[in-house]
Amino acid sequence: MINYRVVFSVLGSLLCFLGPLMLIPLVVALYYGESPYPFAVSFAVTTVIGSLLSFKFISSEDEWEKREGFAIVAFGWFAAALFGSIPYMFDGVTPLNALFESMSGFTTTGATIFVDIESHSRSLLFWRSMTQWIGGMGIIMLFIAILPKLGVAGRQMFRAEAPGPQEDQLKPRIRETAKILWAVYVSISVLELILLLAAGMSFYDASTHTFTTMACGGFSTYADSVAAFNSPLIEGIITLFMFIAGANFALHYKTLYSDKKSLLKDNEFKFYFAIVAISTILLTGILLRDSYDTIPTAFRYAVFQVLSILTTTGYATADFNLWSDSGKVILLAIMFIGGCAGSTAGGIKVVRVLILLKYARRELFKAIHPKAIRPVKFNGKSVPGDVMHAIISFVVIYFLIFLFSSSILAILGMDLTSSITASIATLGNIGPGFNVVGPMANFSTVPVLGKLILIANMWIGRLEVFTVIVMLTPEFWKR
Amino acid sequence: MINYRVVFSVLGSLLCFLGPLMLIPLVVALYYGESPYPFAVSFAVTTVIGSLLSFKFISSEDEWEKREGFAIVAFGWFAAALFGSIPYMFDGVTPLNALFESMSGFTTTGATIFVDIESHSRSLLFWRSMTQWIGGMGIIMLFIAILPKLGVAGRQMFRAEAPGPQEDQLKPRIRETAKILWAVYVSISVLELILLLAAGMSFYDASTHTFTTMACGGFSTYADSVAAFNSPLIEGIITLFMFIAGANFALHYKTLYSDKKSLLKDNEFKFYFAIVAISTILLTGILLRDSYDTIPTAFRYAVFQVLSILTTTGYATADFNLWSDSGKVILLAIMFIGGCAGSTAGGIKVVRVLILLKYARRELFKAIHPKAIRPVKFNGKSVPGDVMHAIISFVVIYFLIFLFSSSILAILGMDLTSSITASIATLGNIGPGFNVVGPMANFSTVPVLGKLILIANMWIGRLEVFTVIVMLTPEFWKR
Repeated sequence: MINYRVVFSVLGSLLCFLGPLMLIPLVVALYYGESPYPFAVSFAVTTVIGSLLSFKFISSEDEWEKREGFAIVAFGWFAAALFGSIPYMFDGVTPLNALFESMSGFTTTGATIFVDIESHSRSLLFWRSMTQWIGGMGIIMLFIAILPKLGVAGRQMFRAEAPGPQEDQLKPRIRETAKILWAVYVSISVLELILLLAAGMSFYDASTHTFTTMACGGFSTYADSVAAFNSPLIEGIITLFMFIAGANFALHYKTLYSDKKSLLKDNEFKFYFAIVAISTILLTGILLRDSYDTIPTAFRYAVFQVLSILTTTGYATADFNLWSDSGKVILLAIMFIGGCAGSTAGGIKVVRVLILLKYARRELFKAIHPKAIRPVKFNGKSVPGDVMHAIISFVVIYFLIFLFSSSILAILGMDLTSSITASIATLGNIGPGFNVVGPMANFSTVPVLGKLILIANMWIGRLEVFTVIVMLTPEFWKR
Repeated sequence: MINYRVVFSVLGSLLCFLGPLMLIPLVVALYYGESPYPFAVSFAVTTVIGSLLSFKFISSEDEWEKREGFAIVAFGWFAAALFGSIPYMFDGVTPLNALFESMSGFTTTGATIFVDIESHSRSLLFWRSMTQWIGGMGIIMLFIAILPKLGVAGRQMFRAEAPGPQEDQLKPRIRETAKILWAVYVSISVLELILLLAAGMSFYDASTHTFTTMACGGFSTYADSVAAFNSPLIEGIITLFMFIAGANFALHYKTLYSDKKSLLKDNEFKFYFAIVAISTILLTGILLRDSYDTIPTAFRYAVFQVLSILTTTGYATADFNLWSDSGKVILLAIMFIGGCAGSTAGGIKVVRVLILLKYARRELFKAIHPKAIRPVKFNGKSVPGDVMHAIISFVVIYFLIFLFSSSILAILGMDLTSSITASIATLGNIGPGFNVVGPMANFSTVPVLGKLILIANMWIGRLEVFTVIVMLTPEFWKR
């Protein structure tokens, strides 16, 4: 039996902590002369329900087990999306669409059901961008960093939320690690904000786009996304920060404070850089052949779009749905990779792809030399068996979910390309796909059942499959 | 250093053995009053070159190693396709297209570059069907069954060609196993031939379609494929034999001669049956909604197409390219599965999919109970670690090749759906895909480089990836 008392009380605390964050868009609403009412109500509802649930907050470790950790993290994210959707409903969005948009926000997916983005209030769009920024480094990690009472139990929750199979703890205490990661995240965000302001963006545009760049989220306050600014300088800054946000924040910290070469020595970062370079070169060539006249123009659109898709941000500076299928296939291929472990990006993650490649290479070697011992190495160390198992089963389950959701969408009547790309774009927390869910389109035309599946995809994808999927096994509910 | 002398001499013997098979279509040509010349020349060229190469035939085991086995099997299949393409060139087919068609034949793919099938001579179409039948149970296996001098070295070649990760040897001596499997194959083929004749087909049609059903090949002597007969009885017979050919022939033998319940007790067969049943029910429902008026009609087209695609045969009784994307997605999903191990079908194979699913399920269990020991079981036995490694690395490399070839085709200018389905249809030895490579279309419009890649796909896919891909590693060529 799972300990429901623990689960509900920690979920309650989480809501008590989420509620006050809604006061920030309330201030934005007041500043722009918009109604503060939606955020006031959302704050009140979230905080009151949270307080009612958390009245018996449990902190002693002995009542915690793996399953409670999974349940808290999974339902905690779902609750954040659910309560975070309240402000949308005040703006005339239906409950299902509000949940879709809110889940897309917190999970940093960036898929939107908004038909006319600019028609929504500035405070709502601010909240929408802000949820991505909170979700980017992690709701649970922020919770761990701020609440002192979680103790060792926090480690289990940290792992259940962590992006990628990294074991790398910066400090012995998990709370310290969470604090450092959030501090690095805030610092780099401030740097991007300053640069975007210097490039001439308004404070509102600069802050909302910083939120959604640093989170690899991709929501924009404009229907035309980053193309709305039509500025190579702004695109350049955003491209750089997407690249940074798609890399490992623990390595950013180490690079800044201990070993300057931490990033350059990391196998995953090198492979990440190689993917960016090769995809950009290929796409530039294709765009030059098919779509644009000069190398600088082709490169400008190629490098931005490669980083936007690879880091699962999902911004657009061009309607890539209009590109040739030659160009689209590059984007489709990198949709399945995603960013680095420990980044704010989604997807399968570069490290998993790299280790699987090394694993397959090792098996080819063993086909010739069956008795030779040749471990799979990453950063100079052998990859342990259980990590290998976790990586492989992650990829298997990931593809099964992808296959299942693509099939259901197609059976519901969506065309094949839209079904496939909508599935991977939500599961990988990317945002836009092709065709009816293209970068200049939106997800409003997806049938109801399809939207429910895509909401589940975003949730499952952000929590790296296991945290949600284990709850579907009978063992989870049995003692 | 690889022992080239052994490789060349065994390849020579293989050609000496392949050459006389060309005398069969020569007889067909004489019967229909067509020129016997193409086959006479092909026979002469193949046999003479074979004799020259094999003048120093080596049989002592000590000169054989794994790498020689791989090289003989891989180049043996390539040589069969190459020399088997000579008759096509006499019919005005370009060398590249002839190699494509011949490789598609031997590998039982069934993808065609023929724009007007019926315009070709009956003897050539007979040869084309016959190559599929030879390739179905395996060129090397036939070679092992007939030639006495291979001895233990044959086992290594047997494994390098065998479809699926089966270890199940019927007899201690590999030559006896090969003989039994070929005998079962011939017997069931004769049974199908008799039934098709009884259903009213001409001997020519019945034999060519028996060849290509039993091999899970899919070449037809008609442009409209099996739709040309428009007979539910003929379709029913072919459906049944596709189902049989897609299952394990070693189990067919055991079912006939030892344990009657061998098939029913086998985990893979049960899962194979479940996939057929579920896909057929789903597709029937979709076709009833989107394309046909009555349940019997929808079921007739659904069950035939599900078995044709799942067993990687590739026949068509309807232009499924005109079906809705809801129907197509079912076909696309089963394209990645394929038939059973030890069948004549291609694809990833049911057993690999099943074991991967069980593996992922086990990891979900271990997420809750990390210290529990729960082996992955197949047919009541634990799957050994090295088998598991081989399955996983097979799937990883399979997807990499799929991704690579889809991308190249798209970059060359083919549309995304055609690129993706052409890649999987050749790698899985299925035959037709969607759009420009649909069941009523052909592969003639694929660019030259694309055809080369698809030829490689068929070759790599039939030999289950490793046998060809290991030759790309430096270890293969170094001592």
